[in-house]
Amino acid sequence: MRDVAVVGVGWTPFGVHDRSVVDLLAEAGDAALADAAVDPTEVDALLVANMASGEFEGRSGIANALVSELALEPAFASKVENTSGSGGAAFLWGWTGVASGLHERVLVTGGERMSSVDRARATEIIASLTHPVEAATGVSLPAYAGLMARAYLDRYDVPREALAHVAVKNHANGVLNPNAQFRKEITVEKALASPLIADPLRLYDYCPITDGAAAVLLCPWEAADGFPHRPVRVRGVAGATDTHVVHERADPTRMEAVHRAAQRAYAMADRGPEDVEVAEVHDMATILEVVQTEELGFFPRGEGWKAAVAGVTGRDGALPVNTSGGLKAKGHPLGATGVAQVGEVVTQLQGRAGDRQVDAALGLTCNVAGFGNNVIVSLLEAAT
Amino acid sequence: MRDVAVVGVGWTPFGVHDRSVVDLLAEAGDAALADAAVDPTEVDALLVANMASGEFEGRSGIANALVSELALEPAFASKVENTSGSGGAAFLWGWTGVASGLHERVLVTGGERMSSVDRARATEIIASLTHPVEAATGVSLPAYAGLMARAYLDRYDVPREALAHVAVKNHANGVLNPNAQFRKEITVEKALASPLIADPLRLYDYCPITDGAAAVLLCPWEAADGFPHRPVRVRGVAGATDTHVVHERADPTRMEAVHRAAQRAYAMADRGPEDVEVAEVHDMATILEVVQTEELGFFPRGEGWKAAVAGVTGRDGALPVNTSGGLKAKGHPLGATGVAQVGEVVTQLQGRAGDRQVDAALGLTCNVAGFGNNVIVSLLEAAT
Repeated sequence: MRDVAVVGVGWTPFGVHDRSVVDLLAEAGDAALADAAVDPTEVDALLVANMASGEFEGRSGIANALVSELALEPAFASKVENTSGSGGAAFLWGWTGVASGLHERVLVTGGERMSSVDRARATEIIASLTHPVEAATGVSLPAYAGLMARAYLDRYDVPREALAHVAVKNHANGVLNPNAQFRKEITVEKALASPLIADPLRLYDYCPITDGAAAVLLCPWEAADGFPHRPVRVRGVAGATDTHVVHERADPTRMEAVHRAAQRAYAMADRGPEDVEVAEVHDMATILEVVQTEELGFFPRGEGWKAAVAGVTGRDGALPVNTSGGLKAKGHPLGATGVAQVGEVVTQLQGRAGDRQVDAALGLTCNVAGFGNNVIVSLLEAAT
Repeated sequence: MRDVAVVGVGWTPFGVHDRSVVDLLAEAGDAALADAAVDPTEVDALLVANMASGEFEGRSGIANALVSELALEPAFASKVENTSGSGGAAFLWGWTGVASGLHERVLVTGGERMSSVDRARATEIIASLTHPVEAATGVSLPAYAGLMARAYLDRYDVPREALAHVAVKNHANGVLNPNAQFRKEITVEKALASPLIADPLRLYDYCPITDGAAAVLLCPWEAADGFPHRPVRVRGVAGATDTHVVHERADPTRMEAVHRAAQRAYAMADRGPEDVEVAEVHDMATILEVVQTEELGFFPRGEGWKAAVAGVTGRDGALPVNTSGGLKAKGHPLGATGVAQVGEVVTQLQGRAGDRQVDAALGLTCNVAGFGNNVIVSLLEAAT
């Protein structure tokens, strides 16, 4: 197995775009190649993380389209789909492509265009990832988040406003991210006064619908010198699943696949949660950030909310989480998210995060498919 | 890099099924695990090759659904989409998963359910893989095959009936494959009298619309002893692309991505076309089998048709091609095809192909996405 480095990062602004997902992916991919000063002819494999271009735009085969847009022929190309975890999955397979020795320069892109359909149709497309019985009975992902939040608040006797602190923190981070969809501060009071979505969660507990793309360039660690920016080493990457049907799980306040993937990634990296200094987690809803910070081992079970309230996960805290603004404020173009998480952590580890820069040598990403159905965790380390 | 073995094969009958693609994938996956006598708990990664479950059945996230159907939790899972080359792409990424050392038992499945929609909608879904301008002007994949056939027949002064020999051969093979969609002999006369589709190609020059699934189980070569059947070693696997827009290519009678992928795979395997003794190629249309046998280096350019006419590629010939019946007679469930090709060659190399058994120690698969947009070639070798 060869060690793998990330040597380039690129993305589009996240928000609403009147362009196809292939155009968005091309913009992000071009940016990552430029960031690494790598010519398209050097790339020998392309991965495209995307959930549903067929449903959103009536286009399939977008990996092959993107090869031509980026002038990468004859680079091999594939799309990887793992619903909202597509980006993490593509990153994992890109890692295996380099680690196995098959590929030398793998461009991992992820993107989604979701504003091409109305909200009702977008909701229907997203709900197509759940078990057909769940989808048919209306138990959507936002609904599951409400049920989880209710159970969590009750079991651990947590004040409702604790969750609002997650949204406030991530919005504050989004203000400092030029590519974030929402760049405005909010308050706990405003979050608590927003429209009810799935009791006890309200509008400001959820990520928006977003268009956008992100890309990272991978190469062997042994060949990672000489790029414009300090390479970042992939110390661990692992995925794990839970039951597809959410109600078959033993504990509604847990995300066991996060725990499983993290344990594998920590073992691979020979590192533990105590070593992580910056993290991007999958805050599709505020409660999910809290639970993930517990499953990742950052905080004891039932105490993740205290870290959010006390500012431990804030930009100036001991363990900054979602410095990018997270899915909440940066936005959540489904296929882009896992790749964008890696991009944010790499940028932080390289010391290139501008106004939102934190001090960190080891970072973690946690990308979630469905409602914890399938999770990819990566551990990234700055070159010393 | 670790060497990789195929140690289990499974599939459903190909044809028309009134069951979801997840059910078909589960049947094939279960069969591959049973074939290898491997318990689901031993599998640590699942790949699902599928083009368009969202469009055909309104379901996404099928990799996660299949994990639960097969009781593979917590195995990591991803779907790989590369249009009609999805199966080959999933096999390639599965290979990297084992070769890199990340995974020990990778179940690679592929499937498609296409009969869930009417033919007009199926055609529309398939056409969504082409460039939007091509799709809008009606230049579909079958139409491109007609244009290629016309150019090829003219340039090399080939009798029209030469192409019919490909269909006759593959139907004859399909008769001997219990899982083939069409199990009846046809004649050159009957093929030439079938309805015109895209001049000069007729109905019997094309593969049908098919439901079905296939699966293979991968493990490290060093751990491939002790399974019920002789392991098969993956000697080479490689992918390559051509322009996404077909009319941008220099020569309408060529499939350059086949040549590129094959050269890479041959180099990786330290073998050449003269060493191949059985092959499964992507005969979406008869002309494509002829051109692929040239691009793969089996025959000189412009002479592949002679091999088909002379029986060289027949079951009793020097280089049997599409012993399974090929896409033409076995059927072409888009995502299943590349995996089924590997399954057929493995079965031949293991001496388990029953009435269609040929004598071969090295086999090749060639899976094509789009109209030669993206091609995956693998080289498989029997254990000695």
